Amino acid sequence: MHTLGEIAEFINAKLVGDASVKINGIASLQRSNSNQLSYIVNGKHKRDLISSQAGVVILDKSLLDDCPTNALIVDDVYLSFAKISHYFKKQITHQAGIHPSAKINNAKISTTCVIGENVIIGHDCVIGPNTIIEDNVTIGDNAYLYPNVTILQGCLLGKNVVISSGAVIGSEGFGNARDNQGRWHTIAHLGNVVIGDNVTIGANTAIDRGTLEDTEIHSGVRIDNLIHIAHNVIIGQDTAIAANTGIAGSTTLGKHCMIGGMVGIVGHLNICDDVVVNAKSTVDKDIKTPGVYTGIMPLMSHKQWQNVGLWLVKLDKITKYLNIKLKNLKGK
Amino acid sequence: MHTLGEIAEFINAKLVGDASVKINGIASLQRSNSNQLSYIVNGKHKRDLISSQAGVVILDKSLLDDCPTNALIVDDVYLSFAKISHYFKKQITHQAGIHPSAKINNAKISTTCVIGENVIIGHDCVIGPNTIIEDNVTIGDNAYLYPNVTILQGCLLGKNVVISSGAVIGSEGFGNARDNQGRWHTIAHLGNVVIGDNVTIGANTAIDRGTLEDTEIHSGVRIDNLIHIAHNVIIGQDTAIAANTGIAGSTTLGKHCMIGGMVGIVGHLNICDDVVVNAKSTVDKDIKTPGVYTGIMPLMSHKQWQNVGLWLVKLDKITKYLNIKLKNLKGK
Amino acid sequence: MHTLGEIAEFINAKLVGDASVKINGIASLQRSNSNQLSYIVNGKHKRDLISSQAGVVILDKSLLDDCPTNALIVDDVYLSFAKISHYFKKQITHQAGIHPSAKINNAKISTTCVIGENVIIGHDCVIGPNTIIEDNVTIGDNAYLYPNVTILQGCLLGKNVVISSGAVIGSEGFGNARDNQGRWHTIAHLGNVVIGDNVTIGANTAIDRGTLEDTEIHSGVRIDNLIHIAHNVIIGQDTAIAANTGIAGSTTLGKHCMIGGMVGIVGHLNICDDVVVNAKSTVDKDIKTPGVYTGIMPLMSHKQWQNVGLWLVKLDKITKYLNIKLKNLKGK
Repeated sequence: MHTLGEIAEFINAKLVGDASVKINGIASLQRSNSNQLSYIVNGKHKRDLISSQAGVVILDKSLLDDCPTNALIVDDVYLSFAKISHYFKKQITHQAGIHPSAKINNAKISTTCVIGENVIIGHDCVIGPNTIIEDNVTIGDNAYLYPNVTILQGCLLGKNVVISSGAVIGSEGFGNARDNQGRWHTIAHLGNVVIGDNVTIGANTAIDRGTLEDTEIHSGVRIDNLIHIAHNVIIGQDTAIAANTGIAGSTTLGKHCMIGGMVGIVGHLNICDDVVVNAKSTVDKDIKTPGVYTGIMPLMSHKQWQNVGLWLVKLDKITKYLNIKLKNLKGK
Repeated sequence: MHTLGEIAEFINAKLVGDASVKINGIASLQRSNSNQLSYIVNGKHKRDLISSQAGVVILDKSLLDDCPTNALIVDDVYLSFAKISHYFKKQITHQAGIHPSAKINNAKISTTCVIGENVIIGHDCVIGPNTIIEDNVTIGDNAYLYPNVTILQGCLLGKNVVISSGAVIGSEGFGNARDNQGRWHTIAHLGNVVIGDNVTIGANTAIDRGTLEDTEIHSGVRIDNLIHIAHNVIIGQDTAIAANTGIAGSTTLGKHCMIGGMVGIVGHLNICDDVVVNAKSTVDKDIKTPGVYTGIMPLMSHKQWQNVGLWLVKLDKITKYLNIKLKNLKGK
Repeated sequence: MHTLGEIAEFINAKLVGDASVKINGIASLQRSNSNQLSYIVNGKHKRDLISSQAGVVILDKSLLDDCPTNALIVDDVYLSFAKISHYFKKQITHQAGIHPSAKINNAKISTTCVIGENVIIGHDCVIGPNTIIEDNVTIGDNAYLYPNVTILQGCLLGKNVVISSGAVIGSEGFGNARDNQGRWHTIAHLGNVVIGDNVTIGANTAIDRGTLEDTEIHSGVRIDNLIHIAHNVIIGQDTAIAANTGIAGSTTLGKHCMIGGMVGIVGHLNICDDVVVNAKSTVDKDIKTPGVYTGIMPLMSHKQWQNVGLWLVKLDKITKYLNIKLKNLKGK
């Protein structure tokens, strides 16, 4: 719990409101309550500001008149959010062995595991050696965690989940605010990773926690090795994703999709249900129609590729040139 | 050991044959013996069925007449195979420290390692701290395993092998059968990873075990960091593979190949000896001729790429259009 | 310390000089001193040879006349360097717990960590469970190392550094010399990884140590998950790199760059300051002008991609053909 007075001082903001109000968390404008802080980076979300139930909002002075609650006026809203986010990150116990508060049912836990405070592990789970489960993690019945897995604080795993060696669940999202000198300021990610039932996660895959809300892996999903799933991604039920693929922040995948290996999906996209993306393709726009999609350069002999490449980078010029030529010829 | 009666009940199959026959493993039609189960997914392999020595075969009723042994008739052969595969997965000990049955020669083992049942470690090996070696693994002389390595059950490493931190050897293959409601059913992978002599494996690389037979990394191979090698891949002698590359299931690479970084090689391919694939290329068909291969989009200014991209996706239409225009002009 | 006599015998070289000279390390021609060994692979660097202060140089006999110091004449210089490099690799302690020589200030170290000989850890650091810190590592104040991190010998981390789970710092570079039978010989990498202040490293990222000099990550850099950074790469201040990206050996990135996810950057390149590379692009040449760069194949329906691909691999032939056609038509 921090007072608005403390917060204002920490982020060097001008407080318009009650300095004694206590804040215990951060949420979006729409989801925050009177004990939570929110922020608005620009006027696009003005409507959400006007109806927000937040205890306080960090904002630019131009939006003060639309703020229905306490306000923290700053020069750079996103940077101030980055700085204050660390106030609300929970500290971790990191004791050896199994914390006395953990509820282990008849799970089989290796002696070299670390099980944190308030962890709940369901019936018939197997937790391999050297696997780390941080505070406040909940794992459903019949989960199998291989050796050397890392489940970071607060994550929630369903029933029959299988996590392979080297996988990291709940790593920090890659969110950073840049100040006016070009320096990055890390955002503390306060959401969790929530994994449904019957999900498998491959070796050395990393799934980042959400910024304020959770990263979600729905039931029945299959995730292969060495995959990166960024903060606030949502993967729909029974979707399968092959190895080396990366999905950037806040993208939502539908149900029953099949994503090939080493596919890159950029952030903030919506991919509908029943989409197949072939291996190595790049998805850089929403997909609204089920079907099979591809986008790769065909393999050639290196020499042929060099010849093709020479013209490829001039394709727009070739098209224009030929069109002019054709017109001229036609005009003859 | 499971009887055919038990197996039939578990996968809900109609048994044609002797319910008391005992089965202790699964193998392909061609390799299975009278104590093993096999399966045939479609008529293409009918010849293998006719000559199979298997104790029982899971099949569709249309193939019953060609089955020379006990038969388990099911609606979905592959799904039934997925379900029964878990019957034959060996359970793991996961005790702390070094299991009394392990044969450690004069290897240097860190106190925080876990060494499973029946593990054999050769002379002069170094096993770094927190490295996990599951049951029935064999490691040849003079191997060096860095800290935080995971070697899963049954894998076989040759002499002078070097495995870097974070590498996972013997993770489950990404094989799943889909039921008629679109749900995935994991296949238990019963093969191992077999690594020859003088092989190096980079940091955070993952090598999956084979489905029924083994994934093979032949002697002298060099594998860099963050590489995915799927189930049943075979990498020929002295081939080198650079970082971030992924090789999908059942692909075979020849000898003395050099695969660049972040190359994607799709499944079920054959790449001959002495092939060089440049970084970032996609290999989506067999390569039968030694040589240098490339397939990437050249880097451009973003603006130029946008201009090129506009025409690129219409390249077939441009070609057709121009051909018509030329014909028309010629006809004038 | 090894004498030139011992070294000559080990690599089967003809020594021209004093067999009793003692050598304690390897460095480049320009940086080596009289106790160090150097090597020259071809005549391009003859000027560096002539002015070298090295105690001995491995070289081809054709360069003997230009050698100002002791010489080791061999048939294959690079291969001989690979073999002798292992002489100078430091052995690791790998004891359990915290080595008595380690200087831990008021850092919070989990009981399952391994902290090697002569490690120095600054004030207020947190070292998560099962994290391994090998000998001679130095970590600045206020660092946060998540669970299951591996920091290998001799690496240097600045203040306020955050290293996520599964990350490996100081893995061996992927440098190998090939003998005349096509077999690879590993080069022992003797440089370290040097990380500045305020750097964050993502989950399951691997950063290789340098061959002779160090791999450098400058202050303020942000590195996401599952990234490969090869030996001797230099990343300039405040540059941010998104997940799944790979940077090959000896490439230098400038300051304030933003590299998208799954970008591949080939080796020995120079990328200037203030460069943005969009996700999935390949950088295969120097970038000398700040700006935004892209090089990917646009996503299409699979059918459309097949149609485009047919013509794409013939783009050079299409261009040539159309030009001839146009000339012929013009000539009519």
